[in-house]
Amino acid sequence: MAGNIFGNAFRLTTFGESHGPALGGVIDGCPAGITLDMEAIQEELNRRKPGQSAIVTQRKEPDEVHFYSGVFEGKTTGTPIGFAIYNTNQKSKDYSHIKDSYRPSHADYVYEKKYGVRDYRGGGRSSARETASRVVAGAVAKQMLSGITITAYVSAVGDLRLEEHYSNLDFSLIESNPVRCPHPKTAAAMEDYIKSVRKDGDTVGGVVSCVVQNVPVGLGEPVFDKLHAALGGAMLSINAVKGFEYGSGFAGAAMRGSAHNDLYNEDGSTKTNYSGGIQGGITNGMDIYFNVAFKPVATIMQSQETLNNLGEMVDMQGKGRHDPCVVPRAVPIVEAMTALVLADFTLLQRTNSHTL
Amino acid sequence: MAGNIFGNAFRLTTFGESHGPALGGVIDGCPAGITLDMEAIQEELNRRKPGQSAIVTQRKEPDEVHFYSGVFEGKTTGTPIGFAIYNTNQKSKDYSHIKDSYRPSHADYVYEKKYGVRDYRGGGRSSARETASRVVAGAVAKQMLSGITITAYVSAVGDLRLEEHYSNLDFSLIESNPVRCPHPKTAAAMEDYIKSVRKDGDTVGGVVSCVVQNVPVGLGEPVFDKLHAALGGAMLSINAVKGFEYGSGFAGAAMRGSAHNDLYNEDGSTKTNYSGGIQGGITNGMDIYFNVAFKPVATIMQSQETLNNLGEMVDMQGKGRHDPCVVPRAVPIVEAMTALVLADFTLLQRTNSHTL
Amino acid sequence: MAGNIFGNAFRLTTFGESHGPALGGVIDGCPAGITLDMEAIQEELNRRKPGQSAIVTQRKEPDEVHFYSGVFEGKTTGTPIGFAIYNTNQKSKDYSHIKDSYRPSHADYVYEKKYGVRDYRGGGRSSARETASRVVAGAVAKQMLSGITITAYVSAVGDLRLEEHYSNLDFSLIESNPVRCPHPKTAAAMEDYIKSVRKDGDTVGGVVSCVVQNVPVGLGEPVFDKLHAALGGAMLSINAVKGFEYGSGFAGAAMRGSAHNDLYNEDGSTKTNYSGGIQGGITNGMDIYFNVAFKPVATIMQSQETLNNLGEMVDMQGKGRHDPCVVPRAVPIVEAMTALVLADFTLLQRTNSHTL
Amino acid sequence: MAGNIFGNAFRLTTFGESHGPALGGVIDGCPAGITLDMEAIQEELNRRKPGQSAIVTQRKEPDEVHFYSGVFEGKTTGTPIGFAIYNTNQKSKDYSHIKDSYRPSHADYVYEKKYGVRDYRGGGRSSARETASRVVAGAVAKQMLSGITITAYVSAVGDLRLEEHYSNLDFSLIESNPVRCPHPKTAAAMEDYIKSVRKDGDTVGGVVSCVVQNVPVGLGEPVFDKLHAALGGAMLSINAVKGFEYGSGFAGAAMRGSAHNDLYNEDGSTKTNYSGGIQGGITNGMDIYFNVAFKPVATIMQSQETLNNLGEMVDMQGKGRHDPCVVPRAVPIVEAMTALVLADFTLLQRTNSHTL
Repeated sequence: MAGNIFGNAFRLTTFGESHGPALGGVIDGCPAGITLDMEAIQEELNRRKPGQSAIVTQRKEPDEVHFYSGVFEGKTTGTPIGFAIYNTNQKSKDYSHIKDSYRPSHADYVYEKKYGVRDYRGGGRSSARETASRVVAGAVAKQMLSGITITAYVSAVGDLRLEEHYSNLDFSLIESNPVRCPHPKTAAAMEDYIKSVRKDGDTVGGVVSCVVQNVPVGLGEPVFDKLHAALGGAMLSINAVKGFEYGSGFAGAAMRGSAHNDLYNEDGSTKTNYSGGIQGGITNGMDIYFNVAFKPVATIMQSQETLNNLGEMVDMQGKGRHDPCVVPRAVPIVEAMTALVLADFTLLQRTNSHTL
Repeated sequence: MAGNIFGNAFRLTTFGESHGPALGGVIDGCPAGITLDMEAIQEELNRRKPGQSAIVTQRKEPDEVHFYSGVFEGKTTGTPIGFAIYNTNQKSKDYSHIKDSYRPSHADYVYEKKYGVRDYRGGGRSSARETASRVVAGAVAKQMLSGITITAYVSAVGDLRLEEHYSNLDFSLIESNPVRCPHPKTAAAMEDYIKSVRKDGDTVGGVVSCVVQNVPVGLGEPVFDKLHAALGGAMLSINAVKGFEYGSGFAGAAMRGSAHNDLYNEDGSTKTNYSGGIQGGITNGMDIYFNVAFKPVATIMQSQETLNNLGEMVDMQGKGRHDPCVVPRAVPIVEAMTALVLADFTLLQRTNSHTL
Repeated sequence: MAGNIFGNAFRLTTFGESHGPALGGVIDGCPAGITLDMEAIQEELNRRKPGQSAIVTQRKEPDEVHFYSGVFEGKTTGTPIGFAIYNTNQKSKDYSHIKDSYRPSHADYVYEKKYGVRDYRGGGRSSARETASRVVAGAVAKQMLSGITITAYVSAVGDLRLEEHYSNLDFSLIESNPVRCPHPKTAAAMEDYIKSVRKDGDTVGGVVSCVVQNVPVGLGEPVFDKLHAALGGAMLSINAVKGFEYGSGFAGAAMRGSAHNDLYNEDGSTKTNYSGGIQGGITNGMDIYFNVAFKPVATIMQSQETLNNLGEMVDMQGKGRHDPCVVPRAVPIVEAMTALVLADFTLLQRTNSHTL
Repeated sequence: MAGNIFGNAFRLTTFGESHGPALGGVIDGCPAGITLDMEAIQEELNRRKPGQSAIVTQRKEPDEVHFYSGVFEGKTTGTPIGFAIYNTNQKSKDYSHIKDSYRPSHADYVYEKKYGVRDYRGGGRSSARETASRVVAGAVAKQMLSGITITAYVSAVGDLRLEEHYSNLDFSLIESNPVRCPHPKTAAAMEDYIKSVRKDGDTVGGVVSCVVQNVPVGLGEPVFDKLHAALGGAMLSINAVKGFEYGSGFAGAAMRGSAHNDLYNEDGSTKTNYSGGIQGGITNGMDIYFNVAFKPVATIMQSQETLNNLGEMVDMQGKGRHDPCVVPRAVPIVEAMTALVLADFTLLQRTNSHTL
């Protein structure tokens, strides 16, 4: 109930703090018989790791995943897949300034109030470093979901927005630039903007968009566990996320039904897709697409007045190695959480029919 | 795993189709010793019921809740609270036209594909009538959460948006108009607009905003079960919802950290509240606020071409008694789901501390 | 978390007190497309109901089940199946003597301490009347498990034990006598014994045995959710149960491995079946069999000294209409819980294989 | 749903095969602020480890636990506690003979049928080595449950039974002999018997008894999650367990109510304790006590005819280093599972009262 377990049939339990010996997780419920490509898993982790480009944090963490169980002679066995990523480059002394003070818009204060104790080093459990475990598990889920394609990309950095519909984008360009935006011109502008923000000792938010293709009809449970509710909950569980919309999203709220309704073709596909591939919580076989809003990173390289644990106002200078903008590194995390949700609902759907 | 159970410690199971004998639910985990105001529960249900004003569906359902268990001499006993609402005004013949055809942007098609069978009358389980059970349970949760105030209101209908910050609004005006918008002038414009849309045989979407006040510090579990992730999932599980944002939301994605950070006061409160009362998934004692986007109702009183179960394109004329815009009736539903989430996390928080 | 929900994929939530308006439940996760025989369900309930013979309680409750949802044109739809049984023959004044006193070996005292309030009428939620809901759901589960045969019977009443191996019994005789023992001579002795115990104003315990036949290989999850662990937990959740053993059971603890090991036949069946059809928590296709021990009913028609809520010792005379021995009526309850467990694990097993 | 997660509020997820790189687990929901005695945890693990005496398996595994998270400056932080135990002394070639053959009364055959693949080395996931993770987590749970005392001991080996009531035993003698029986004379006989059984190349079953003292009133949820149902399920999830009984157990089934009822004292305690400290599923403050039956270990050092994966009957000679009788090493496992259940229900109980 403490919220470190995700999913129902395909379940991920994660553990680990930013500066402890290791973080990792256990996947329970991955079906047997899947040949796992271990390099592909490590590659997903590399997409998330720090230090991969000039516009992300310059921490150098190798982030190598070690598997402990659940795989035998290259195949999943149906038993839990335990794994760990060792923390090797922690500079805990970078964080001594926050031992007794609460960084603005970080979780320091609420952890202290909630638990009475707090591992302040690098944000402890509240660090986005926890998402490395999600990326590992998501990479396993992706391999289970062969056939389904999950593609995320950066669609906004600050005020710079990529307005193109995803069908006009060349997804093969996503990894061609450090921003992970498939529109080279916009990507270049975003990259410059992130650099200028960093030069100001500041940070900026952004939006990650995600498209899921080749989805079978029928995934999603119709009331509380609508597929988009699970996707939304999953995205909102990623650090720094402030909003989620799918299909027509917030813009759909301004539309009329006559314009918004997706009319059918004879094969059950629809002429438009304002529904975002989900009707009544259940996939209809059209593309799922959604947007995830990320706030600016709270750690800025500027002096801020803040509170300490004696109830005094103190000056705090941002330290450590932080991202000026999280969205480039959030792309694989969004994909991973999407894969975890879809793997879970794929297994759940098997339990719904009498004539399986 | 079929998704009709909501929550972990304060759990709601719902059942019921639009045109079956009854719908209802079971609340499991409501603590003992709460004096329940049964009239207040019925009143919440009345806020949701059809036929309450000129701008909502004109179906006349009394929607009276019957309690079966869990309450003794006016108090909760800690045992499950079972309840039912009988369906009394169903006109199933209104739905014979959809027995073999799939209404555009409804769940007809996906239910048929998912389950092989489908109770087509009134949308069956996919009908928003299911939310009546949520409102009952939410009303019980509200009474458990004495002290915490949950207030939802309509902030947009189509393009008409109430731009005022909630702190400038008089919440006592929400129930003074059928739109449930606390800004009388905007409310009147919205009402007129909904009427004109209905006259066109059309529908329109909108936005419900919600504010939670007097929240204790420490609610929310820090990783997958962040409070806002649970709230987002809960809202997205309401019929017709397309998006959720809290605190600065999508607008926050365009901001810089130096502007977005909420600086502390000496008492632990913050000078601004872009965080929306939640940091790292845990409440910090500031107001929680969020927006929920609703798409336009899919049933329009116009002819649409659609698909039947023989794979043929057929003309379909909208029938039945439907809402031209759901947001006025969605207000108590948003409040109910908020109350369910907060009741759940209030109980969960009791399990976190060693020195309770 | 308050424990009124059973199962994972095939889930039963129950509600209801002995003397409230109704008790009932919601089945969530029953697959779609099962043609339900409603009379068969009512018949199971009749096997459990009071007043059916001279050796059980003489209360007259019709115990008629009403279905509210989840079934359309005779078939399950995949949506939750809600149902209720109205309480119609309650004589609450029979229980005024226990309003302030705690019956020995009943749950009165612990409910009061746990919850602070207590519906004392008929034992409230602690009444075995709650198991009526389980029998309904179990009857649905049985229909889902077509092919698998679940047979329970009384194998001991007090010191009278049926020592025959089940393979030598004629199960068609179980319902031929009020004890539900398939061995007529033993049944007659048990019946006489129960009558003499009742004449003494006393009660007596007994054992129910259960055999499951035509079980597919592979049901059960190997670590915490071993099939026999789930069966044991299910049986122990039935009122008055004190013990559970499967296969060789407690007698197996005295055996040597060379005698206890079940050697294989070429077809994968085993020559003996000390394993009770389950190896490592997973069915091997052989019969599952187990014993469930029930204590004597705590309400006796004798005077007992007991405690009241003022901390005083008071005399209490047993009243009301109670069973002198529960095992005859427990037979359908044991079968129901067995069916619920098997239905659940049948669905869970669908999620384990990659090549479904 | 694959059954490698135990508990609701205090949750243990385990992973690991007998011959993989490591096994371990994650505890989620351990409250913050508990000072953990790491040596005490390792000591519990030492009580379970192989090679500790002449009557257990002579495998030499150091079984050292490594903690990865959730503890900071010696205290629990409320975040998940991840841990691992490396496998260091595996002799996988000992198991090549079972690669293609199914050991009688082992899980080899059912794993192959259930999953299609199987890590045959040392039994893979079905090995009792998995319980090492449970002992670690149970040791943490024990430290959370300060005040409550959990004591298990061996009460039967084969036909040798310790008939003394536990109140006449000196628990301080349990660890004084390798059998873990607190009655020295019986312990010596059991030890001799185990040695003679081993000399025969055979194995033998036994019974572990457990007593829980200083239990608060009110633990346990009254319907499906009765405390004894959870304890029974937990015990039955331990490898080789065939039966569970608590309080009067199977003997109680032969008793009359007038003899079995536990009459109250003025302080709410009872004069007798046939209830085993639990009434209606809820603790009443008296001692909890129960028995757990273990079958004889299936691996015997004799030749047995068995089945291979070609459907042929083959001779198999028992190999490897195995226990002739598991109960001495099962004692700490029974205690650990008891502690996990009690920790879970202690946290759950916090959610039941309105006036916490």
